Amino acid sequence: MGEFTHFDQNGNAVMVDVTAKEETERTAVAEGSIRVSREVFDAIVNHTAAKGDVLGTARVAGIMAAKRTPELIPMCHPLMLTKVAVDFEPEEETLLVKCRCTAKLKGRTGVEMEALTGVSVALLTVYDMCKALDKRMMISGIRLVEKTGGKSGHFVNPDLSL
Amino acid sequence: MGEFTHFDQNGNAVMVDVTAKEETERTAVAEGSIRVSREVFDAIVNHTAAKGDVLGTARVAGIMAAKRTPELIPMCHPLMLTKVAVDFEPEEETLLVKCRCTAKLKGRTGVEMEALTGVSVALLTVYDMCKALDKRMMISGIRLVEKTGGKSGHFVNPDLSL
Amino acid sequence: MGEFTHFDQNGNAVMVDVTAKEETERTAVAEGSIRVSREVFDAIVNHTAAKGDVLGTARVAGIMAAKRTPELIPMCHPLMLTKVAVDFEPEEETLLVKCRCTAKLKGRTGVEMEALTGVSVALLTVYDMCKALDKRMMISGIRLVEKTGGKSGHFVNPDLSL
Amino acid sequence: MGEFTHFDQNGNAVMVDVTAKEETERTAVAEGSIRVSREVFDAIVNHTAAKGDVLGTARVAGIMAAKRTPELIPMCHPLMLTKVAVDFEPEEETLLVKCRCTAKLKGRTGVEMEALTGVSVALLTVYDMCKALDKRMMISGIRLVEKTGGKSGHFVNPDLSL
Amino acid sequence: MGEFTHFDQNGNAVMVDVTAKEETERTAVAEGSIRVSREVFDAIVNHTAAKGDVLGTARVAGIMAAKRTPELIPMCHPLMLTKVAVDFEPEEETLLVKCRCTAKLKGRTGVEMEALTGVSVALLTVYDMCKALDKRMMISGIRLVEKTGGKSGHFVNPDLSL
Amino acid sequence: MGEFTHFDQNGNAVMVDVTAKEETERTAVAEGSIRVSREVFDAIVNHTAAKGDVLGTARVAGIMAAKRTPELIPMCHPLMLTKVAVDFEPEEETLLVKCRCTAKLKGRTGVEMEALTGVSVALLTVYDMCKALDKRMMISGIRLVEKTGGKSGHFVNPDLSL
Repeated sequence: MGEFTHFDQNGNAVMVDVTAKEETERTAVAEGSIRVSREVFDAIVNHTAAKGDVLGTARVAGIMAAKRTPELIPMCHPLMLTKVAVDFEPEEETLLVKCRCTAKLKGRTGVEMEALTGVSVALLTVYDMCKALDKRMMISGIRLVEKTGGKSGHFVNPDLSL
Repeated sequence: MGEFTHFDQNGNAVMVDVTAKEETERTAVAEGSIRVSREVFDAIVNHTAAKGDVLGTARVAGIMAAKRTPELIPMCHPLMLTKVAVDFEPEEETLLVKCRCTAKLKGRTGVEMEALTGVSVALLTVYDMCKALDKRMMISGIRLVEKTGGKSGHFVNPDLSL
Repeated sequence: MGEFTHFDQNGNAVMVDVTAKEETERTAVAEGSIRVSREVFDAIVNHTAAKGDVLGTARVAGIMAAKRTPELIPMCHPLMLTKVAVDFEPEEETLLVKCRCTAKLKGRTGVEMEALTGVSVALLTVYDMCKALDKRMMISGIRLVEKTGGKSGHFVNPDLSL
Repeated sequence: MGEFTHFDQNGNAVMVDVTAKEETERTAVAEGSIRVSREVFDAIVNHTAAKGDVLGTARVAGIMAAKRTPELIPMCHPLMLTKVAVDFEPEEETLLVKCRCTAKLKGRTGVEMEALTGVSVALLTVYDMCKALDKRMMISGIRLVEKTGGKSGHFVNPDLSL
Repeated sequence: MGEFTHFDQNGNAVMVDVTAKEETERTAVAEGSIRVSREVFDAIVNHTAAKGDVLGTARVAGIMAAKRTPELIPMCHPLMLTKVAVDFEPEEETLLVKCRCTAKLKGRTGVEMEALTGVSVALLTVYDMCKALDKRMMISGIRLVEKTGGKSGHFVNPDLSL
Repeated sequence: MGEFTHFDQNGNAVMVDVTAKEETERTAVAEGSIRVSREVFDAIVNHTAAKGDVLGTARVAGIMAAKRTPELIPMCHPLMLTKVAVDFEPEEETLLVKCRCTAKLKGRTGVEMEALTGVSVALLTVYDMCKALDKRMMISGIRLVEKTGGKSGHFVNPDLSL
């Protein structure tokens, strides 16, 4: 049975010791989406096709944020990502703009938080760039899709049909 | 009818000019939640009651992240928040940990993104601190609840029963 | 005759006192360029027309860097930019990619450094994204084009034919 | 023939995967200069000899900026520099203040961008600290001088007579 | 009788609301010192007289850190310093290197934390730059010297003979 | 006999070359304290026991600051901490709140500065959160307690009775 690893025996927050962990190749994929209005959906898709580039800007924001995860999440270890990618899939029937972030490194600790942070900030950027059109957009479904490497091995989120 | 304000006439991303806007008092409230397992829920609630403090750490993370919003969201204006608060409400029947962030300032631009960023990072921190117990947690429902001040006036999200 | 304002009477670096300065509207425009090979030039221009977007990414980087100027330049005052824009003009005959950054605020201190930093980081980003093709690219001509507001009034760089 | 490595097959910006690259010792040297007026030149040189230290401050700024390159340049990998040095050479006959930055690490990716960023911010700092005397200063000639380590091996910029 | 202002009625940390506070001119002066060995003391003093500049580097570090106070201290409001200065006084008889930081702004909240952070980071930088010579150095006496502006008015630390 | 390692032969500040150093496990422990009034002491202790959590917030701040040491201390190498912990011990008889920070990594350079920075920022946060009650608090005794790993081996501060 699991137990909190971010608290010491007195219940205080701590950045857990990973010194003794092996350097292995680790990847994590996270996803999430933003539900937008028809108007916003069209604007995003058309601007992308043209030049105005909501998703291009959000992709850059997500990649940059993934790198800064340890500055944002208090107990995250600093680490050296060897890859980050952020992709979008606007889904017309549901008016969802889906986002997926992949993070990778060779290191002592997993990169779930980096992938989740990349998705979150990319979607927040979509919100920011479209909020003049609609303030009711909602970000949902942010979760880990898959994870490889490290002691806990290959994790595939059972809630998802990959 | 609205139009993109983050792009110039060539469709390029731009930080919109707010120089001429008046300094008014502005507030924004955003919310979101993380769905956790029973095990995680109990651990969060009990540690909070005792000393280990997932929500206390997440609150600090959310407040600090709200202040750094302009570093994360490319087209956000730098601004000087005069208040940030982050609150949690663990809801036993749904196993949702709800989070709400309030941001406030006297300035030329709204603080929606600050409130939304505060909520997002607070919830990511909950994920981080509990992920040893469960990796299936999902963050959802991140949206603007309410907004006052500025040209667009009082906005209450019609999707919510406040 | 001018004198150093960043040093006190002992010659020590200091962030000069601008408390008593009036809040006025201030703008600054800076420019610079990167000289690239024909191969890089075509790749930049064609990717822009299609989807790969060197200049789009560099624009975002420049805007974000302008906001972080006081973190980079030791004696710069923190300030709240009310507008930043970064534009590029690829010039086929010279194989120069020209960049211009405009910064604006209502405040107590000028925004030259913000405009210059925006140009510099935008051009460095172009370098980064094309360096697999060519490492001989050179960044030049980074200078202030124009400046308005503040005690020193309207400055137009006499070296430039605007 | 080279191709863009910062874009995936859809032309989207991506932080390229360097996970499989070997950790080797890598160095990069970059240079650039700022052209100043006679008045500024003398002030810089004399203050350096005395106590006021434009170049000392710029050196610190350049070193600190080199470390923050991955925060500024969107697709740069986070990395752990093992050395950074910034040097200046004021050249009386041309009124150029030349700057050189050397960066070094043992890692999976080159440090060109770190050296180039160090030079750029060091020169911007010189501009900032002297701009009360002259706003016409121009930063030029920012380029890679030399690079060792990594797959591409030893690169010496053929445009330069080292 | 005072009460905690950083906690709401439930005892949760919060960035207190200063929206309604008036913008007034505020200053704060803080001090502290580092006790060094004779060897370090001489090295600092002599390098300062010559070119190697422990204190010049520490001054820049202190000024830059003061600007970043709201990123470091969780409940500090973001604010726009209009002046920061860091000064040192090496005191031969006690082998103390004394440091003083002055911060100033026109705003809604005091700048004590900025002055205290400037002193702390300046002294840590002295430690860093001399630690190859001696690891026993100790930083002490970090406190507020004086404070003006704001509701609480003029404060002079009664423990000090100014 | 020691000599400055942060300066090159011309006396200029430099980030020393550690490329050739071996990656070894390194730890550092630093301590410091803040002297508070009886009123503040009781408030800290009681709020900790209840829910308001000065020390919990300060602990998070200290851990986050330790990770950002290379951004604050100019000549510090970027590094990847594998553990950080911050602990407090309020000492009733002396009205001192003692703080200890432990940092750890497997790398080429020591982590003294990380431990010292963690302590400093944790104590500054205590100051910030209690300053409405008392502005006379003083931070003292910041020093290295112990250090292991690296060329210089095991260091125990002889001024301390561990």
